Amino acid sequence: MAAKSYIVDLRSDTLSRPTNSMRESMSRAVVGDDVYGEDPTVSTLEKKIAIMLGKQAALFVPSGTMANLISIMVHCNKRGTEVLVGDKSHIFKYEQGGASQIAGVMVTTLKNETDGTFNLEDMERHVRGEDIHEPKTTMVVVENTHNMCGGKVIPMDWIEKLATVAKKHSLILHMDGARLFNATQYLNEDPVNVVKHFDSISVCFSKSLGAPVGSAIVGSFSFIRQARRMRKVLGGGMRQAGVIAAPAIIALDEIVPALIGDHRRLRFLAEAINAMRSPTFTVDLKNLQTNILMLDIDQKCSVVSKAVVERLQTVTQGELDKGVVTQDGEGIIVKIIARDDKTLRVTTYYEISDIDINYTIKKMEFVFKEMECSKGFFG
Amino acid sequence: MAAKSYIVDLRSDTLSRPTNSMRESMSRAVVGDDVYGEDPTVSTLEKKIAIMLGKQAALFVPSGTMANLISIMVHCNKRGTEVLVGDKSHIFKYEQGGASQIAGVMVTTLKNETDGTFNLEDMERHVRGEDIHEPKTTMVVVENTHNMCGGKVIPMDWIEKLATVAKKHSLILHMDGARLFNATQYLNEDPVNVVKHFDSISVCFSKSLGAPVGSAIVGSFSFIRQARRMRKVLGGGMRQAGVIAAPAIIALDEIVPALIGDHRRLRFLAEAINAMRSPTFTVDLKNLQTNILMLDIDQKCSVVSKAVVERLQTVTQGELDKGVVTQDGEGIIVKIIARDDKTLRVTTYYEISDIDINYTIKKMEFVFKEMECSKGFFG
Amino acid sequence: MAAKSYIVDLRSDTLSRPTNSMRESMSRAVVGDDVYGEDPTVSTLEKKIAIMLGKQAALFVPSGTMANLISIMVHCNKRGTEVLVGDKSHIFKYEQGGASQIAGVMVTTLKNETDGTFNLEDMERHVRGEDIHEPKTTMVVVENTHNMCGGKVIPMDWIEKLATVAKKHSLILHMDGARLFNATQYLNEDPVNVVKHFDSISVCFSKSLGAPVGSAIVGSFSFIRQARRMRKVLGGGMRQAGVIAAPAIIALDEIVPALIGDHRRLRFLAEAINAMRSPTFTVDLKNLQTNILMLDIDQKCSVVSKAVVERLQTVTQGELDKGVVTQDGEGIIVKIIARDDKTLRVTTYYEISDIDINYTIKKMEFVFKEMECSKGFFG
Amino acid sequence: MAAKSYIVDLRSDTLSRPTNSMRESMSRAVVGDDVYGEDPTVSTLEKKIAIMLGKQAALFVPSGTMANLISIMVHCNKRGTEVLVGDKSHIFKYEQGGASQIAGVMVTTLKNETDGTFNLEDMERHVRGEDIHEPKTTMVVVENTHNMCGGKVIPMDWIEKLATVAKKHSLILHMDGARLFNATQYLNEDPVNVVKHFDSISVCFSKSLGAPVGSAIVGSFSFIRQARRMRKVLGGGMRQAGVIAAPAIIALDEIVPALIGDHRRLRFLAEAINAMRSPTFTVDLKNLQTNILMLDIDQKCSVVSKAVVERLQTVTQGELDKGVVTQDGEGIIVKIIARDDKTLRVTTYYEISDIDINYTIKKMEFVFKEMECSKGFFG
Repeated sequence: MAAKSYIVDLRSDTLSRPTNSMRESMSRAVVGDDVYGEDPTVSTLEKKIAIMLGKQAALFVPSGTMANLISIMVHCNKRGTEVLVGDKSHIFKYEQGGASQIAGVMVTTLKNETDGTFNLEDMERHVRGEDIHEPKTTMVVVENTHNMCGGKVIPMDWIEKLATVAKKHSLILHMDGARLFNATQYLNEDPVNVVKHFDSISVCFSKSLGAPVGSAIVGSFSFIRQARRMRKVLGGGMRQAGVIAAPAIIALDEIVPALIGDHRRLRFLAEAINAMRSPTFTVDLKNLQTNILMLDIDQKCSVVSKAVVERLQTVTQGELDKGVVTQDGEGIIVKIIARDDKTLRVTTYYEISDIDINYTIKKMEFVFKEMECSKGFFG
Repeated sequence: MAAKSYIVDLRSDTLSRPTNSMRESMSRAVVGDDVYGEDPTVSTLEKKIAIMLGKQAALFVPSGTMANLISIMVHCNKRGTEVLVGDKSHIFKYEQGGASQIAGVMVTTLKNETDGTFNLEDMERHVRGEDIHEPKTTMVVVENTHNMCGGKVIPMDWIEKLATVAKKHSLILHMDGARLFNATQYLNEDPVNVVKHFDSISVCFSKSLGAPVGSAIVGSFSFIRQARRMRKVLGGGMRQAGVIAAPAIIALDEIVPALIGDHRRLRFLAEAINAMRSPTFTVDLKNLQTNILMLDIDQKCSVVSKAVVERLQTVTQGELDKGVVTQDGEGIIVKIIARDDKTLRVTTYYEISDIDINYTIKKMEFVFKEMECSKGFFG
Repeated sequence: MAAKSYIVDLRSDTLSRPTNSMRESMSRAVVGDDVYGEDPTVSTLEKKIAIMLGKQAALFVPSGTMANLISIMVHCNKRGTEVLVGDKSHIFKYEQGGASQIAGVMVTTLKNETDGTFNLEDMERHVRGEDIHEPKTTMVVVENTHNMCGGKVIPMDWIEKLATVAKKHSLILHMDGARLFNATQYLNEDPVNVVKHFDSISVCFSKSLGAPVGSAIVGSFSFIRQARRMRKVLGGGMRQAGVIAAPAIIALDEIVPALIGDHRRLRFLAEAINAMRSPTFTVDLKNLQTNILMLDIDQKCSVVSKAVVERLQTVTQGELDKGVVTQDGEGIIVKIIARDDKTLRVTTYYEISDIDINYTIKKMEFVFKEMECSKGFFG
Repeated sequence: MAAKSYIVDLRSDTLSRPTNSMRESMSRAVVGDDVYGEDPTVSTLEKKIAIMLGKQAALFVPSGTMANLISIMVHCNKRGTEVLVGDKSHIFKYEQGGASQIAGVMVTTLKNETDGTFNLEDMERHVRGEDIHEPKTTMVVVENTHNMCGGKVIPMDWIEKLATVAKKHSLILHMDGARLFNATQYLNEDPVNVVKHFDSISVCFSKSLGAPVGSAIVGSFSFIRQARRMRKVLGGGMRQAGVIAAPAIIALDEIVPALIGDHRRLRFLAEAINAMRSPTFTVDLKNLQTNILMLDIDQKCSVVSKAVVERLQTVTQGELDKGVVTQDGEGIIVKIIARDDKTLRVTTYYEISDIDINYTIKKMEFVFKEMECSKGFFG
């Protein structure tokens, strides 16, 4: 077995580490105490992202979870409110129920379609008003791109229809835009147009954009003034935050334009997988839009995701003998994650190069053949 | 038009007013300060309902909403928990989201089947554990009988299966038994058996049981001790509560055995409606089990529920001329409520007599004929 | 020892049981479903108390604790607020911290003076504004009469000054008027004048007024509309609540005018105690204003409150021999409560008659002599 | 007037900017996704601070406010609890009431003595138990050093007594050690001894320690495991947090040993102020212990803090003429903050050099003479 292996880590774009220019920016950032409003780098970042999204103001916060929580706390500032979210949304699935736990807001789910949207008639049926038996439906959240729907970009025409329904019922619209720029890249649209109907947007710098820490909340002056107050009580106020705002600025300047490459590389991988003509492992290409890919295992096959994840992280003597190695002769480890028993998630980000993709294909081709049900894995 | 009309009020069993024996019990109740634990009538009621349900203890509270809220507060006593409820449940629909708003608990819905249950595999897929991204699924609520599913009685064998799944995942089971005795009557089962798998049960005295005010929470000594504390902070502690506990005792003794009559009378009405052979107004008899009936309007017909509700509350000269009157010659008003555009809800309770049902049939026969689509109401 | 003893229960006016006319009112009350807004007796009570206090509207709730909690929830309807209360107030001491626990409001205490007021300059120093580091001071609560300050009546001129300060800082004023009518009786003032500067008032029917259950919240139409919503989510909505509203109406009509007797009787007892010229047990007469009396034990004496409470509940052969008996020859038991190690609380209410007071004096005179420090109780 | 002025910023040690070695550490930090537990630099910092404090584990969080909030959320994990804090504590005064607002905990204040402690008998009187009328007193917080008491170090013998009382009542002890190392420096004690009685401690890296962002919570394995969960729901989880953990490690290594200089320099300034023999401006030297100094203005004098703050930030032609300039001939600006009308707060930290102190003395000497009441400022 090779003494050392080469690792391609495709588990999540949150793993992206700061670029050299980001690291340099940290070491040179002009900083002050942002709690006193005296950190010029934070102010620059906040203004920059606000302008990019065509809104009045922005606020830098430690995480996307806090960005969404604060948005809900501000919009649902009165007792007895309800927020509508998709049943595969990050807010419902991965934020520990903070909207209810911390903000006291009822979180009601609408069934997410495979494209990340939900049925608008169903949504309308869920809207509740002033009846004292009911929480008042106050806001609706759209996730764009939609992580658990496979990095799907919310269609622009659906947003138009959503905005009409929301207006009719005076509902506030929030976009969980953790990967907003992956959506705008795919759409080839100015972000201003994508978010124009939304009262607030959260954007993450530390996912596909590669910055080490932080998200922004973007909205009106009034919204951001209140958000600043919520950030304080949650403990999200940071002192010389310029040191992490600086790489976020670099991310907007240098990584956003490079997202197209992440999408291209992932599509290349997806097509290569399908070209393997495996009866067991396939990608639904029409569902691949951005930097998140869902790899399906045939339902009739006994192979489960976990076994594939483990096998891809293992280097065997057999594969080394068959030349599944890098150009330097190292064994190849590919890390991906299981979404459920029959689906695997593969993600690209700026650190994943063309050559990483090639190594990944090499490894997968060998492993998928080995694990194919025709080779004895049927249950 | 008749100077005076006779009213049959079938809107809700919550309308039931205290019987004469209940009123007498109030005026004779031996009372003390229940906050000091010195009201013997309250103690008697609490012991009586606990014994009837085969549990250790009970607590008298002002409403069913508070009974459910306290149960959630006690069971979900730690931060970051989740409760699973049906999407047609009273807790989700009609308690203003108190579980989230007041108790900080995430309320996640499972799709209610028409029989009031939900799919247990779907439930199991929803169970979440200790992952810090997720609220911990802690309890499951079953509503029995199920109001918005038309007074449906939860099948005993389904409860057995639910208990197995709940045990497997260490989930606490709570029964919203606002109309528990309607269920036990229908099942002809000892309540002890119906609730044996449940850690807590709420029971309403002021719905089909006819008492003026109050509900009970029933469970273990430890549960009730904690519930008492929650009742205090919510402001549900009452002083000489014996005056309202007394009629609740009467309700258990005198109304519970009489529920069979409410069910019989409602079935009589349902069969009479179907016997009218109206193409527009029908009852799905196999869905009628207890004291709540769903009356369907043909989807293809333009008649909407609201119009029917209003017409049944109106007495016209025409119907008086046609003899749609009581034996005393009074016009007949029937009150029911619209559940949605094409469904009406009809409820019986101890105050609704055989003769009331006969008057209702008389009135409905006339009105349904008048409003039938074949008579020109098609849209 | 006498086979049977006569009990005078002076522990709390919450022990007061309904009068015969109250009981009769319950059995005759015209009721409906108050959740549907159809209980005429509840409406009558709400209108009556609103008019008595010169406000627009009122809401009937199950307890004083809920009345105060709802008032805080409505007034502090936004996140990040603070309420100022006295450090001996019922809200701070005896409501389980519900304002923080349930309503998420910071409860900040001001030192209560012996007369139930607090220093207004100190209050003003505590007012906090929009700084994001601080909760916004939103409301101030005054308790009148002040229970733990010995039933003290808040001086009218202090209220005037408070109102000026409150207005200056746009602070909302709430009166915890659990025993408001004891205050108005002492002041010989129209309640309208006593509460005129307050945005909301809670009044208890089940303390000195003798009704079995319930309190009212009184304020503007807008306040009560919101309060109704809060009552719902807390589970304070009751169905045929007319059965307990009826005795509350009687309480306003029949017990309020009789409060003067409770005050007179308690003063008679206080003067009788001081006339005993005990070096150990004394009453500060100038601090006695209404129906709550603080009985002091000499600090230098080793006797503690608990021992006195227990002794007064015991009938000895010695005292029977000395004629400490009723006119029927029964032994006398007097129940009071310990407020702290050296202070006892004695309360009168409508059920405590002149003859009860005479028996109490007889018993206390014997017991106080027995327990006097000069008789060997020094530590 | 000089074209450019030299600024000595003594407002707060939170203004401290990262050192060059901190900046370099950021640019070189080995990082990973800390949400996946894969950031080695964060792990190193957490282990390092845990060891320094003699506890099992630690957690890195974005701010001191979040550190305190999480500690309260974990310790007060059940409904209906109360925390005791000083009435000048940061938790009570400057965290927006988050303990109540977010955690639902009642925050009860004890009067802070001038040395930052509180009376332990008073504390004991405040302890509340299981009575359902009361929140259960669960934890007590000590702030060390105590900011608003002038950087006071909590005496070790008082902590011993506190621990005895806390143990007696099973109270959890938390230390708000935002400036813990200033305390240990003053005491010349191993931090392990200072915190040994405390169940949890929060420590700030971004105040006197100079790091740009972040605090740590320190305690047992079990406490930290729960704290990690709370951090998640608040949105305090950060991705490549190693970039800010790295400078915090430097802070522990390089700034902690240098705190003695900050204390020495501030004492030098304080003695110099008193040596000015101003009748108006004085320092109570016996109250000066660490890096926070309270500068008193004579109560009888009409000068108010705000005027002094503004004057010290102004450079006049007069002072330039009198040679109040740096060695480069620049005018001198000194920034301090007003604590109240008659007290100013002056703070030192690593960026404040000996020469800054000399310029400060020069400036203050001139300004204090100018503003002395004997010069006509008496009211």
